Amino acid sequence: MRVLVINANTDPVMTQVIRKELERVKRPDTQVEVVNAPGAPQFIETALHDVQCLPGILEQVGAAKENGMDAIVLACFTDPALDAARELTDLPVVGIQAASLFLAAQLGRRVCVLVPDTGVKYVPACDVDVLQSKLGPQFAGCEVIGVPVSGTVRDQDGVLRQLIEVARRSAADNRAAVFVLGCAGFGYLAGALQRAVGLPVVGPDAAALKTAETLVDLGLSHTVRQDIGSTSRPRESD
Amino acid sequence: MRVLVINANTDPVMTQVIRKELERVKRPDTQVEVVNAPGAPQFIETALHDVQCLPGILEQVGAAKENGMDAIVLACFTDPALDAARELTDLPVVGIQAASLFLAAQLGRRVCVLVPDTGVKYVPACDVDVLQSKLGPQFAGCEVIGVPVSGTVRDQDGVLRQLIEVARRSAADNRAAVFVLGCAGFGYLAGALQRAVGLPVVGPDAAALKTAETLVDLGLSHTVRQDIGSTSRPRESD
Amino acid sequence: MRVLVINANTDPVMTQVIRKELERVKRPDTQVEVVNAPGAPQFIETALHDVQCLPGILEQVGAAKENGMDAIVLACFTDPALDAARELTDLPVVGIQAASLFLAAQLGRRVCVLVPDTGVKYVPACDVDVLQSKLGPQFAGCEVIGVPVSGTVRDQDGVLRQLIEVARRSAADNRAAVFVLGCAGFGYLAGALQRAVGLPVVGPDAAALKTAETLVDLGLSHTVRQDIGSTSRPRESD
Amino acid sequence: MRVLVINANTDPVMTQVIRKELERVKRPDTQVEVVNAPGAPQFIETALHDVQCLPGILEQVGAAKENGMDAIVLACFTDPALDAARELTDLPVVGIQAASLFLAAQLGRRVCVLVPDTGVKYVPACDVDVLQSKLGPQFAGCEVIGVPVSGTVRDQDGVLRQLIEVARRSAADNRAAVFVLGCAGFGYLAGALQRAVGLPVVGPDAAALKTAETLVDLGLSHTVRQDIGSTSRPRESD
Amino acid sequence: MRVLVINANTDPVMTQVIRKELERVKRPDTQVEVVNAPGAPQFIETALHDVQCLPGILEQVGAAKENGMDAIVLACFTDPALDAARELTDLPVVGIQAASLFLAAQLGRRVCVLVPDTGVKYVPACDVDVLQSKLGPQFAGCEVIGVPVSGTVRDQDGVLRQLIEVARRSAADNRAAVFVLGCAGFGYLAGALQRAVGLPVVGPDAAALKTAETLVDLGLSHTVRQDIGSTSRPRESD
Amino acid sequence: MRVLVINANTDPVMTQVIRKELERVKRPDTQVEVVNAPGAPQFIETALHDVQCLPGILEQVGAAKENGMDAIVLACFTDPALDAARELTDLPVVGIQAASLFLAAQLGRRVCVLVPDTGVKYVPACDVDVLQSKLGPQFAGCEVIGVPVSGTVRDQDGVLRQLIEVARRSAADNRAAVFVLGCAGFGYLAGALQRAVGLPVVGPDAAALKTAETLVDLGLSHTVRQDIGSTSRPRESD
Repeated sequence: MRVLVINANTDPVMTQVIRKELERVKRPDTQVEVVNAPGAPQFIETALHDVQCLPGILEQVGAAKENGMDAIVLACFTDPALDAARELTDLPVVGIQAASLFLAAQLGRRVCVLVPDTGVKYVPACDVDVLQSKLGPQFAGCEVIGVPVSGTVRDQDGVLRQLIEVARRSAADNRAAVFVLGCAGFGYLAGALQRAVGLPVVGPDAAALKTAETLVDLGLSHTVRQDIGSTSRPRESD
Repeated sequence: MRVLVINANTDPVMTQVIRKELERVKRPDTQVEVVNAPGAPQFIETALHDVQCLPGILEQVGAAKENGMDAIVLACFTDPALDAARELTDLPVVGIQAASLFLAAQLGRRVCVLVPDTGVKYVPACDVDVLQSKLGPQFAGCEVIGVPVSGTVRDQDGVLRQLIEVARRSAADNRAAVFVLGCAGFGYLAGALQRAVGLPVVGPDAAALKTAETLVDLGLSHTVRQDIGSTSRPRESD
Repeated sequence: MRVLVINANTDPVMTQVIRKELERVKRPDTQVEVVNAPGAPQFIETALHDVQCLPGILEQVGAAKENGMDAIVLACFTDPALDAARELTDLPVVGIQAASLFLAAQLGRRVCVLVPDTGVKYVPACDVDVLQSKLGPQFAGCEVIGVPVSGTVRDQDGVLRQLIEVARRSAADNRAAVFVLGCAGFGYLAGALQRAVGLPVVGPDAAALKTAETLVDLGLSHTVRQDIGSTSRPRESD
Repeated sequence: MRVLVINANTDPVMTQVIRKELERVKRPDTQVEVVNAPGAPQFIETALHDVQCLPGILEQVGAAKENGMDAIVLACFTDPALDAARELTDLPVVGIQAASLFLAAQLGRRVCVLVPDTGVKYVPACDVDVLQSKLGPQFAGCEVIGVPVSGTVRDQDGVLRQLIEVARRSAADNRAAVFVLGCAGFGYLAGALQRAVGLPVVGPDAAALKTAETLVDLGLSHTVRQDIGSTSRPRESD
Repeated sequence: MRVLVINANTDPVMTQVIRKELERVKRPDTQVEVVNAPGAPQFIETALHDVQCLPGILEQVGAAKENGMDAIVLACFTDPALDAARELTDLPVVGIQAASLFLAAQLGRRVCVLVPDTGVKYVPACDVDVLQSKLGPQFAGCEVIGVPVSGTVRDQDGVLRQLIEVARRSAADNRAAVFVLGCAGFGYLAGALQRAVGLPVVGPDAAALKTAETLVDLGLSHTVRQDIGSTSRPRESD
Repeated sequence: MRVLVINANTDPVMTQVIRKELERVKRPDTQVEVVNAPGAPQFIETALHDVQCLPGILEQVGAAKENGMDAIVLACFTDPALDAARELTDLPVVGIQAASLFLAAQLGRRVCVLVPDTGVKYVPACDVDVLQSKLGPQFAGCEVIGVPVSGTVRDQDGVLRQLIEVARRSAADNRAAVFVLGCAGFGYLAGALQRAVGLPVVGPDAAALKTAETLVDLGLSHTVRQDIGSTSRPRESD
């Protein structure tokens, strides 16, 4: 099968890191094509960036089916444009946040999300209300490590050292039992962090790719059916 | 004071209806300027539309301060781009959904939101999770009336008749005690619906304009401070 | 319009402080009349006090309409007697807790309530369940400053110094982004605290007065419709 | 032991019905004294009534210890003045709502509360938010039967017939598995209703009396320790 | 009446401690028979132990009625096999966790559960989701004291010293106002801990025994009615 | 890789149906071994059955690693013994309830669980609190179809007809957008139901097998780290 993976930003280094990680975990019969979102910011670090990457993502989504793809992965931890993308195509569209949180929820009682430091502005990737809504009582918090998004793919040793430090503290102080790496950029460090802390660590890109493979295998895709409190409607004849 | 009101779509009829309603309820010393979002769809009826109106809204937001505005109202019930807009400007930015829900919550125990019929696709304006999160135990559901968004400003008698019917049913069957009109297009019908059903009805555009006036009076604006579970960060020296 | 503001206690200093603050923020065409609740305790600092102020409040409420009032503000952060007052009159009755929480919720993601130190007894003004229910996931906690209620209006410099200290700590440790001053007595310090901490601060008396003005402008009032899980009733003929 | 039971209203018929029921279920060595709240309304059917019964209740509470009582039961399903009463005395004070809900929660998964018809006004006894907060996911709704509070003690056959009808419907339509009789007035019908519907039925007066006996046996009483989000306080020396 | 109390483990010392405590608090006319669960582990300290004690418990439950018992108490803080036990018998079956939490919830606003140290494995007795679900907003956390389950009945002075230390810290740091002793083994220390900390302390065995007495007095028992979201079923004729 | 699938009951027909379904969806390089739980009831339809299947499941789990297995699937929708199994082995253990719910949550907004009719007793597979806790606001209810567990694998046409009828009704009346088949016995009907209703349908056995494959691919397993509100422990020296 062929899976299109859309890195929501335009940083070529991050795209290459994601590609390398997914080549490693994909099934032999899966082809992975990792692309950028044209016109997006180099990194998604604010709510404004999150809006600015949308047109490029939807452009890639719109062309996926005719390009022979079987499934799409949105590789940004904000799951940007997920609802709109699902209106544009009937291919399965997997967001890395949802895929990684739901896999992590099966591995232990309390799940902690580790995110880069995007400064003081609001960033949907770290919206604790959304994380809380998805994980419910299993949510053990969202912890910031001291590197910006750009750093996640440029200083492997420094990032890993900080991930280990923050994860250990969260396990000790906040009973975290499972970790999710909350950025497409440092999913490749999941294995190393897991070995260091001795607790399960889920990389979001890998989790999403495996979910895409599962959906294709099982013949499943999403639905865009509307969610309204009541669908009661006055009859035509009224 | 001067308040910029951005109708998120490009329908000139709706813009005119909103303008007329706000001229009626504004304070004598308030100037209201109602504009469209350039390049947006004519109506916002799907998740895709909701993405497509964002650039035009942000263009209007970005120019507001230098155009001498004191506050901004986003006049679409999805409160589109609210977070991004607040990063672009330090003027108070008021969303009509938030403003109307929080005013309604002060008028009775259970609040029901009435929305146009946008078909079977997901529409953020009717996302019951968001409404539930804002209203908590006061949320009494979201009810669909049998007219599309375009109809809200083009068939006053028909829309009002359906609003009355659905509101009465919701009061009888679901203990709704307060109503919010969940579309910028039919806020002008709040008074007529209130008279018909004998329960409070909040029009979203008017509620947002009065909130904007309040914020300017009190010298208040929003903050974009980031919301993360933990702000603990490794020290520089680590 | 004429707005009756009922200070739930009998402290004349607090009444004067509230009056002065509201004269400052009211619209030019609003007349504000600030009164005490006859027979109430000098300060409301326990659950018992909260009961003892009720008869005096209801006496004032009952006379408001014939005294030519257009709206009523209950100026005690417990919103005492709000439900009973709304049965006594069809004038809009605004509680300062509800008004300030819902305004604050529109200004940022996490709202912190700052309250005076009323000792170890239960005080409804600080009931975190009620605050949590109104603010939902936006509630960032209730913080005590080291002055009793009487002190809020008698030692401006000392109170402000403590408000600043506690607010800064709450922003640093608990990600508070917006503050509500949880006592009618120190609403007058909202502006000074906001300047000191650089985050929005809502004064409850001012927020309630502006809400009262809004309700009168929009022709809105409360409803006392009963909130029961089921209204199904056996038919008369059974 | 001696238990003071305060009927919050002034209806002598209801007081006599409660007394008779409690004489039946009390332990041999318990003395039950059932009194009215002086100055209260004849029945508690609105939020205003709920305020008006408070002074009389507190008068009775204040005199209980010197009258040789060992515990106090507040016999009105709104648990009126519970917090204030607990500040007035260190005797155990039991509310019939809390006692009956928590006993019912141990008997099955979903608990339904049956209440008299108090009309369209808000009545705290039927506040579904409070019931929901106490029962959490076990709350199966609050159902109204077609008799006023006065009727509960004056037409035994008619009330029982309606209780049976509503309870059966709630079990069939809403999966109710346990019932609580939500008024001090018809607790005496618990046994008859249980026999008729074949599911557990908790009478609130009896549940509260047994809870009072338990507390005295175990040497337990309440605490009035304050519940605030943070107890952090600036030091005196600051 | 005769009450069968099943200590879920096979430690004879703990059985003897429970028996002594219950002899002290039972009513004069109650006979208490405390037994072990045959074949269970000596202590219940892991999820695996929790499974291993089930057959023995159910064996005791199955024989209770013909042995002339009137009610059953399951004396392990995980409330093991409660649902299954209730299918085996129509005698009232009381779990010590449920009984003690619901009694504690009536004594103050925030309830803290104190548990022995069972190591790093999951133990249902300390499942904060279950405790949270039962106590709702009143849950103030679950605190571990530094003794294993075996120690609770073998080192009274050491255990009490640690209980006092942890309870005081929880009251100071986390606003705990009521304590529940979360293990059948140290319920006998409730009185001593209460005297030391000056806040109510509920022993789970005693609370459950009094609840069993109450249920027998009131003619109440549980129901096993199924809890499903919908009971709608296709008609036979479909 | 080799995956052990444990059918929690002893019905050979169901085991064969599960085996056939999993052979269809497994990857070419996966070996699936489907076994029964020795000594379990023929079907799991009550809380008592749910206890009785535990020893047989744990026996199979305990032998899995030395039998060369790489992962284990517990094929009963109650996820019986999941916590205990995870203490017995460090192989990944996947429950079909958790795996199917979390996959379904990624396919649409509201998830409905369809279960067989197990009569009026409590069955953990249909515990709406557990389903609600896992799915949060996405939970759209649990619907019963009119066949017992035994029927799910013995009358394909009749079961499918009822699944279609109930699913259509749930979509129309309750806005269900995604379905989970809540029994190991009828997972094989997911495809046929999906084609009939035009909405995604997740079969639990297949979802769990794919999750097991994913965990092995990614080198992930569970953790049994304890979940306690506080891990604060007195120091050794105290």
